[in-house]
Amino acid sequence: LDQGAMAEARSHQDRLTKPRGSLGVLEDVAVRLAGMAGACPPPLPAPAALAIFAGDHGVHARGVTPWPQEVTAQMVANFAAGGAVANAFANQVGASVTVVDVGVAADLPSAPGLLSRKVAYGTADLSQGPAMTLEQAAQALATGREIARDLVAAGHRCLITGDMGIANTTASAALIAAFTGEDPARVTGRGTGIDDATHRHKIDVVRQALEVNGLGAGAVPEGPEAALRALAAVGGLEHAAIAGFILGGAAARVPVILDGVIAGAAALAAAGLAPRAIDYCLAGHRSAEPGHATALAALGLRPLVDLELRLGEGTGGLLAHPLVCAAARVMHEVATFDSAGVSEKNS
Amino acid sequence: LDQGAMAEARSHQDRLTKPRGSLGVLEDVAVRLAGMAGACPPPLPAPAALAIFAGDHGVHARGVTPWPQEVTAQMVANFAAGGAVANAFANQVGASVTVVDVGVAADLPSAPGLLSRKVAYGTADLSQGPAMTLEQAAQALATGREIARDLVAAGHRCLITGDMGIANTTASAALIAAFTGEDPARVTGRGTGIDDATHRHKIDVVRQALEVNGLGAGAVPEGPEAALRALAAVGGLEHAAIAGFILGGAAARVPVILDGVIAGAAALAAAGLAPRAIDYCLAGHRSAEPGHATALAALGLRPLVDLELRLGEGTGGLLAHPLVCAAARVMHEVATFDSAGVSEKNS
Repeated sequence: LDQGAMAEARSHQDRLTKPRGSLGVLEDVAVRLAGMAGACPPPLPAPAALAIFAGDHGVHARGVTPWPQEVTAQMVANFAAGGAVANAFANQVGASVTVVDVGVAADLPSAPGLLSRKVAYGTADLSQGPAMTLEQAAQALATGREIARDLVAAGHRCLITGDMGIANTTASAALIAAFTGEDPARVTGRGTGIDDATHRHKIDVVRQALEVNGLGAGAVPEGPEAALRALAAVGGLEHAAIAGFILGGAAARVPVILDGVIAGAAALAAAGLAPRAIDYCLAGHRSAEPGHATALAALGLRPLVDLELRLGEGTGGLLAHPLVCAAARVMHEVATFDSAGVSEKNS
Repeated sequence: LDQGAMAEARSHQDRLTKPRGSLGVLEDVAVRLAGMAGACPPPLPAPAALAIFAGDHGVHARGVTPWPQEVTAQMVANFAAGGAVANAFANQVGASVTVVDVGVAADLPSAPGLLSRKVAYGTADLSQGPAMTLEQAAQALATGREIARDLVAAGHRCLITGDMGIANTTASAALIAAFTGEDPARVTGRGTGIDDATHRHKIDVVRQALEVNGLGAGAVPEGPEAALRALAAVGGLEHAAIAGFILGGAAARVPVILDGVIAGAAALAAAGLAPRAIDYCLAGHRSAEPGHATALAALGLRPLVDLELRLGEGTGGLLAHPLVCAAARVMHEVATFDSAGVSEKNS
């Protein structure tokens, strides 16, 4: 981040017609946007582009979710038809929607806004061995990077992560446990809603995944090689693509608003691959999944929206976009004490 | 609220292509919007109108804030010129801005978007006796009601409360202590930023205000007469106008998004005057002022934005508007499991 632009942004904030610090977290957001762009005021982060990366999971066979696997493909069709919550929220905030098939376990009919970048027909079962080969993970990472680059080239000034993949909270929990060293019982949640017995089973599956892949003893060591290995071992194709999407956004110096627990897990992998990439990330929201708070704490990110959402698709990231825009807009439109002729407080 | 429309909204939510309950707090917002409008799906709460009620406070003379009193008038000019943070946020969310002088202690030059409804040149010092006469409070209430009615008649489908008044967090703390029976030390905050000594003094002033006005022993009794008396005794003209604005929004069956601690204090008065009016209120955000959380708890409202803002003007209410719209939009645009051909989870 550009420290000069950040210092300028901080000092500009203090001259605006408002008590110092009175915009709370949004002042930090504005300063970080200035650092990302290397400019004060920072450009408005609009228009935004949501990319929904879709993939299936071999671990679905272990019964970690009551939803049938074909729902992944059905929801991709729903996104393409504009019928999902992510579409409604994108309409609300003026974001474009791109759906990317990186690993759906079915051949999908072509549709407007759907990009076919299939790396595999779903991952292998992470509780039996690596979910992906290193080559598959690298290919999904490269796909995410390219999508980010293309969306920025098309004029988007903010990227928002989205995901679809039945069973992907299981892979997310495994990634978060692996990268933070936290116990699986503390980071494995109920996803879309499961009963106590399925929840206990899901925790066991995550524990097995870590053990069989040699990730059971403390956090993944630093460095890109270990990060790629862990991502391939217990991640999903959509996690790898989102990690690449983050790296691509950072390379283009554009803010990336992270959605929920899937994005948080992917961001931990991105941080392992290139720690400075997280400087370009904003946490859109905090989901109801327990592992998400763990991931955000490890990333050092504060969520902007906290409304007990647990839907995914990018919905939490989309809701945060107007807040991020508002933070930037203050830097462009608000008068200073001098220019408005407003008295400052007595010191 | 229309219980039939609310039941229909709940059952519609459960048919949409998302896990049940996965939109968290926004599902409750959508259900309440349906109840307010008596229709499912509820109309989109747009366009929105922000009304900033401005007034001065006799208690300013007690040294409860380091800001000079003339800043109230200067900020009114800043709003009219479009230079304040509230203007920038209103631009971001597409809300109109109306500034209403209900009690600024100066003659203001006319300006576009500024309505002169001055009841008095500021209130009397609430720590020495009643801040307003009952007639003044009633007049400010009527003004707020009329502004709400006029804004709805002009086509707005959502009202957002705003305020400007140097020293108005002191009156807010006194109102919140009076209506909840809470100790002044627990509900009196640092407003725009004061040092420890001024904070202790501000708490003492609030305590004096309650005692001198006979409000020191427990919460204000139920009923409109006692509520009006307490509002006049320790409120501000902008608090009374905002209470009227809430009543006017409720009468028009339009959602009213409350801003921060000033709106929370005014809403307690509105609840005393007409308890059902709070059914039409949504808490836009939770401010950094400690009394605000107390007020929201007493009102039974859950804030939508929680970003440590402490600016007022309506800024927190404006930021919540896209979230409220998103909640309503889901009810219009999202496909059902049946219509989209998406499988439901196995039970």
